[in-house]
Amino acid sequence: MRNIKLVVEYDGTGFAGWQIQQRARTIQQELTTVLHQVAQEEVNVIGAGRTDSGVHARGQVANFRTTSNLSTESFLNALNGLLPRDICVHSVEEVPEKFHARFDAKERVYRYFVSQRLSAINRYYSWFVKYTQDVNLMNQCAKILEGDHDFRAFCKLNPELSHSRCIVTASCWAESEGGFVYEIRANRFLHGMVRALVGTMVDVGRGYRTFEDFKRILESGARSDAGMSSPPHGLFLEAVRYDSLS
Amino acid sequence: MRNIKLVVEYDGTGFAGWQIQQRARTIQQELTTVLHQVAQEEVNVIGAGRTDSGVHARGQVANFRTTSNLSTESFLNALNGLLPRDICVHSVEEVPEKFHARFDAKERVYRYFVSQRLSAINRYYSWFVKYTQDVNLMNQCAKILEGDHDFRAFCKLNPELSHSRCIVTASCWAESEGGFVYEIRANRFLHGMVRALVGTMVDVGRGYRTFEDFKRILESGARSDAGMSSPPHGLFLEAVRYDSLS
Repeated sequence: MRNIKLVVEYDGTGFAGWQIQQRARTIQQELTTVLHQVAQEEVNVIGAGRTDSGVHARGQVANFRTTSNLSTESFLNALNGLLPRDICVHSVEEVPEKFHARFDAKERVYRYFVSQRLSAINRYYSWFVKYTQDVNLMNQCAKILEGDHDFRAFCKLNPELSHSRCIVTASCWAESEGGFVYEIRANRFLHGMVRALVGTMVDVGRGYRTFEDFKRILESGARSDAGMSSPPHGLFLEAVRYDSLS
Repeated sequence: MRNIKLVVEYDGTGFAGWQIQQRARTIQQELTTVLHQVAQEEVNVIGAGRTDSGVHARGQVANFRTTSNLSTESFLNALNGLLPRDICVHSVEEVPEKFHARFDAKERVYRYFVSQRLSAINRYYSWFVKYTQDVNLMNQCAKILEGDHDFRAFCKLNPELSHSRCIVTASCWAESEGGFVYEIRANRFLHGMVRALVGTMVDVGRGYRTFEDFKRILESGARSDAGMSSPPHGLFLEAVRYDSLS
């Protein structure tokens, strides 16, 4: 069996998220259907991360096993020819048979866009926050997330998880056109984690909570103390990193 | 009568262009309908430029006359509350009664986005050109457009126009993420002019035509010699400039 790795971009606006569900349009379903056509056999598409409804990806990674002997270039052209226009594939690569897009991911990079100016054009791609934000305060919060922490306070409860620790390798806010962008890199992310972090940091940035509140929420681990989740449409899965695939 | 000036942003994707037409969704129609509600009287909305179907604007300017005594802030909030989400208003300002958004415009700024990488997220906001472009060649073309020229070769025939000369104050290509952006500033634009210019310059950038061809087309004035128009969805009306409104 060959094992094929894809780098996938999608506009999450028209999808009920990554993961296949009954009676809903999902990215995994569209890829599975089109790969079935191209490979002429059933395929199981494994994604690095399950993005929620409305969340976008510029660098989602997926893999699937196949007996097809189509070249990677033919896969690329066939996929981009057949996929709906809100999904496209940036690369197709043959990888060792044991490669697994989800379990082998070493780092994921997410960005979240906050706009301080109402925008018609960006309405599906950034969160409009009308309150003036103090980016220095938000950065003070972002910085204490770096390192190994328990993110219990910033996730949806999932009894299947053995623990809620994540190693954050970078966490910072930067100014971007008309607003701010938050970038976070970590070895793993819990469900709803980036949106809960952003929602709570924006509360600090507008002066509704203090930095000390934020620090206490992280340390206490109480989800009820954290702020509202920010909406999904500001969130982008930018990249997934692996050890070199030798 | 008060005269009110608006700065308007819109995502052109879902519209049949600016101008009111029967049985088509247009920006002018949406603004007219909502202003009628807000001002409680019929209003005539005058736009600085009639953008085509699919063309976006970050800085379209419009004006209307009204007897309403609502404050400009109330107009702004009511408009953004009632308009569909693919249109928003950035400013509402009271201007002298003689101000006319179209006739008084001194300079319009357009940008055109060309992407060299297929993108799902930008599919409605840039033109994907798969041929590798030489930005220096495109810039050589762009530069000869500056100054006072007859743009007959780059417009749709309009017998109502007395002449087809435009004074171009800036014309240049720059690299942008994943592609290129063209910016052109001029006192006036002919119908289809930016898209015909971009289509022909991209022909030069990919080596299908030469810079000398481009120069000859501009000088000859023969539309049939120019290239295909680039698609509307890469085009943005960025700003409209006026003399200070004293």
